Amino acid sequence: MLLEQIQQTNDIKKIRPKDYPALAEEIRRFLIEKISVTGGHLGSNLGAVELTMALHLSLQLPEDKIVWDVGHQSYTHKLLTGRREGFDTLRKYGGMSGFPKRKESDCDCFDTGHSSTSISAGLGLVRARDLEGGSNTIVSVIGDGALTGGMAYEALNNAARMETNFIIILNDNNMSISENVGGVSKYLNNIRTSNAYLDVKDGIYNTLRKTKYGDEIVTGVRRAKNSLKQLVIPGMWFEDIGITYLGPVDGHDVNGLVRVINEAKRRKNCVLIHVLTQKGRGYGPAEKHPARFHGAEPFDVATGVPLKKRTKANYTDVFSTVMVKMAARMPDVVAVTAAMPDGTGLKRFKSMYPERFFDVGIAEEHAVTFAAGLAVGGLHPVVAIYSSFLQRAYDQILHDVCLQNLPVIFAIDRAGLVGSDGETHQGIFDLSYLSSIPNMHIMAPKNKWELSDMMKFAYRFPGPIAIRYPRGEAFDGLQEMRTPIEMGKSEMLKKESGIVLFALGSMVAAALEVYERLKERKIPCSMVNARFAKPIDKDMIRFLSCDHDLIVSLEENVESGGMGEKIRTLIDEEKLPVRLLSIHVPDEYVEHGNVEILKKEIGIDVDSIYEKIMKEIENG
Amino acid sequence: MLLEQIQQTNDIKKIRPKDYPALAEEIRRFLIEKISVTGGHLGSNLGAVELTMALHLSLQLPEDKIVWDVGHQSYTHKLLTGRREGFDTLRKYGGMSGFPKRKESDCDCFDTGHSSTSISAGLGLVRARDLEGGSNTIVSVIGDGALTGGMAYEALNNAARMETNFIIILNDNNMSISENVGGVSKYLNNIRTSNAYLDVKDGIYNTLRKTKYGDEIVTGVRRAKNSLKQLVIPGMWFEDIGITYLGPVDGHDVNGLVRVINEAKRRKNCVLIHVLTQKGRGYGPAEKHPARFHGAEPFDVATGVPLKKRTKANYTDVFSTVMVKMAARMPDVVAVTAAMPDGTGLKRFKSMYPERFFDVGIAEEHAVTFAAGLAVGGLHPVVAIYSSFLQRAYDQILHDVCLQNLPVIFAIDRAGLVGSDGETHQGIFDLSYLSSIPNMHIMAPKNKWELSDMMKFAYRFPGPIAIRYPRGEAFDGLQEMRTPIEMGKSEMLKKESGIVLFALGSMVAAALEVYERLKERKIPCSMVNARFAKPIDKDMIRFLSCDHDLIVSLEENVESGGMGEKIRTLIDEEKLPVRLLSIHVPDEYVEHGNVEILKKEIGIDVDSIYEKIMKEIENG
Repeated sequence: MLLEQIQQTNDIKKIRPKDYPALAEEIRRFLIEKISVTGGHLGSNLGAVELTMALHLSLQLPEDKIVWDVGHQSYTHKLLTGRREGFDTLRKYGGMSGFPKRKESDCDCFDTGHSSTSISAGLGLVRARDLEGGSNTIVSVIGDGALTGGMAYEALNNAARMETNFIIILNDNNMSISENVGGVSKYLNNIRTSNAYLDVKDGIYNTLRKTKYGDEIVTGVRRAKNSLKQLVIPGMWFEDIGITYLGPVDGHDVNGLVRVINEAKRRKNCVLIHVLTQKGRGYGPAEKHPARFHGAEPFDVATGVPLKKRTKANYTDVFSTVMVKMAARMPDVVAVTAAMPDGTGLKRFKSMYPERFFDVGIAEEHAVTFAAGLAVGGLHPVVAIYSSFLQRAYDQILHDVCLQNLPVIFAIDRAGLVGSDGETHQGIFDLSYLSSIPNMHIMAPKNKWELSDMMKFAYRFPGPIAIRYPRGEAFDGLQEMRTPIEMGKSEMLKKESGIVLFALGSMVAAALEVYERLKERKIPCSMVNARFAKPIDKDMIRFLSCDHDLIVSLEENVESGGMGEKIRTLIDEEKLPVRLLSIHVPDEYVEHGNVEILKKEIGIDVDSIYEKIMKEIENG
Repeated sequence: MLLEQIQQTNDIKKIRPKDYPALAEEIRRFLIEKISVTGGHLGSNLGAVELTMALHLSLQLPEDKIVWDVGHQSYTHKLLTGRREGFDTLRKYGGMSGFPKRKESDCDCFDTGHSSTSISAGLGLVRARDLEGGSNTIVSVIGDGALTGGMAYEALNNAARMETNFIIILNDNNMSISENVGGVSKYLNNIRTSNAYLDVKDGIYNTLRKTKYGDEIVTGVRRAKNSLKQLVIPGMWFEDIGITYLGPVDGHDVNGLVRVINEAKRRKNCVLIHVLTQKGRGYGPAEKHPARFHGAEPFDVATGVPLKKRTKANYTDVFSTVMVKMAARMPDVVAVTAAMPDGTGLKRFKSMYPERFFDVGIAEEHAVTFAAGLAVGGLHPVVAIYSSFLQRAYDQILHDVCLQNLPVIFAIDRAGLVGSDGETHQGIFDLSYLSSIPNMHIMAPKNKWELSDMMKFAYRFPGPIAIRYPRGEAFDGLQEMRTPIEMGKSEMLKKESGIVLFALGSMVAAALEVYERLKERKIPCSMVNARFAKPIDKDMIRFLSCDHDLIVSLEENVESGGMGEKIRTLIDEEKLPVRLLSIHVPDEYVEHGNVEILKKEIGIDVDSIYEKIMKEIENG
């Protein structure tokens, strides 16, 4: 086993070049075996094995720096930097993260998780190095999917025409999370298919540098612009703004990659190496279904089939179904996703109504303002973006949608704790950032039927409105409770007196359990499904304050700007005779791990809620 | 007077083509005269006179749509759509906005104010038109400065290779707000200076379409890539991703512009027209000092000198001075701005420490993550961005800076009401969006000396920290109060009992006036300078609750997520024996106008605060 020889950083340099293919094969087997047990990002990691090996061979870590865009492709990097044991606890609570973490290793130089940040971060490291007189090499590794994000372009614009070394590796697997979109992607694909493979071995760089053909064709080119459009000049798009383009190069040839990286290190400017890789490389099922193996649940290695069969629908499924139903009856309904037709559940909508479906790439900012344009144009757009990714579009929601009070529906999946992806992906801020925006309305469904009802309500509402719902199985209790949705109105689920559990969305299921425990103890208790986080149901709270001593507000969001604060303000301003106990996510980043464990850790699981209430009763 | 003949939309079509230059001249005189009285965006409007005329001649408004990026260049558009009288009330309370407003005219199809949104919005209108079977023309007009913003690129990527008409006009004046930056700008400048002016009259389009030279040069081009780098092929960068490029064309030749727009209307895809304009065209002082006349205060037409002499320093000046001082002593201090070296006051820093100064273009997202990279690299970056523009970087602050707990200082100018720029520019959300982020710390100075002290404190603090300060003259009262800044600690200014005014930043000056009025009425009153909005000074509030009945919290921010809610939570959770009166900006967009009038309108001026307190005393 070659992998046995790699115990720590730079050990890979002891491996003989002829053994590189065998090592790559061992790494692949290792990753497949481990991820099949823990789950994790498979496809992107299988695609980046040789590229990571080449980087570790060319660079001297930790002095040299690699910034991994998104970071979900950093498993081989972790394996080569002494974290082999970590794969048994991958993405588990207290275990190894699925993303780069500075606290895990000095070889992880910048934490990532969201897309398109690596060039900006790398450029910061470059400028710091130069001001401090350093000479180490800094490399940002970015995928072609991440290149659809605007901030990557902002950074490219700034990296252009620099007079210092900075290496950008474009890891082009011709895929975003699903199929990639847009003009730039097609441009890259043209290079890919033009048979213009850079033959590094033959030293073509040197021949390229010769300019003797230059003068002869200048005149011709000027007159023949349109014919040139058809012609692929590899990398001209990058060269045009002042970034040296090297490529395309075979992303599965370690020796070739090492040579081109070494060549890039010698340049005194920003160099982009265009590396062609295959997502899922070396594992049949992942090569065949790259979207499905982007982020995989534990699976059977032989077949690629998930080990756990899903029995219950999740909220994404419900959203998926209701979108198709709404589209059939309402011709003005259109859907916008930022590179996630699968993840958001819009795949069916896409296949049934392709002309009404818009995948804009990993471009949340554009997605939202584009939706504003659709709405001004008379359509009723549904923008489906995960809670933590929608953070990217805060200004666009505020400045382009809500300022004009436009009918745009935000379908916010992964709101609340998401589990194994950790800090960067927890959807625990959306109530805060959305509540600060005038004209915005925010709902959260208690169960799967209510998500459907809320979507229909949102369609009838003539302004901006958001529905947030969590990852995972949809709650299918309380089916009998299905009163019509009204703007700003909550729903009374159980009416007694004393304590009232005032729960938003995912917290209704937890509240129900707490309710039952309190009943067991013969403690009188009511339960309300909040439905709206903005505006809150003031009438209901006033009504409740008449025969309740304690309102327990429950939300899966940080406190600042959340629902609890709004209820507290009302109680205080109107001097309502009731106390508030606010259950919320604390003001800290929540790491990766099983959601149930995380909820316990931060005190929003059923036990913790129950205990907090009992304590409040004792002290009250 | 030709302008007299233009009373309403499309009246310009009655003007004879030979009179276009005379009309342009009249429009310029009109704009200079009016803006010299009211103040407003001068340079960009003078540059866009002929372009706007040509658009109005080629298009049929309001059926056809023009989306103005940023919107500060839309004055001629307003003039040509029956809003001549509005120029007397330009940017005044209740008067005409300095930006497009749908409520002002059916010829304003999309409200703007922030940069780089127009292509996204226009693309939304295009898709809506097509789905609804319309055939109108949609044009987005974007400046070369706005093209440095990532979402413009996200939109270009989506507009590429469309099979329907969409016209993007790149209004290239070779300037951002100040000098433009980055590779794309230099690329555009190469086209500009290459003498490759598109000769529309000679029908060069047709010759360009001929491909007979194509085949001959393919082989040559492949081998001569590097020589081609030196060659400017106009617009290849756009053509590469699938956008038809027309240009460059003279932006001050109305007839030429009309011809090229008409040509563009015939295409069945996305067309970018590259129009070269001169910022400040036709007014000597503005041509000479484009940055100064970007947004101008009232000035003397003959000399261009501002009418009102500034006597007092504003916060920007203070920031400017302290940055230079800090830079001299602290070699790790570096500065980042998003296209606003003048506006943020970093111009002096730039001239004295050019290698430590980074203008990244209108690219707030990149600015923040770049700063995170600088901080990881061992430097101490100061990111200076206006409050409303920093909204763009919410996710980057959360995901790249605060998650890694990096020492980045955010200098947030224009926090609070900004006045004449209106809804899109009011800095009334930053406390909300920043407070929701773990690890973030937020300060606001009471007067000019405290801004300086806070900057130095921020430098010593090893994590993310923000300082927000308002537009306009810096408060220079309370000079005698200058206790050292301590993390999370407020400053007692006047200590009595009864009522305490707990004021943040700009509200301390107002609180001082309220304090004096209360004293006149012999009402006992204390006053505290909050200093920190996050974390709030809990000890001080506990202490105050001992001998005060009422805490009046004062902040220039919306309520949700602001300082008042935090104080209320503390009082309520700890059952402190004190009431809270929260003074804040209401949950609505605040329009343009004089700041004093606006404050009165929304109830945060001295009179309103005083009255609210008196009412609270009566009811309490």
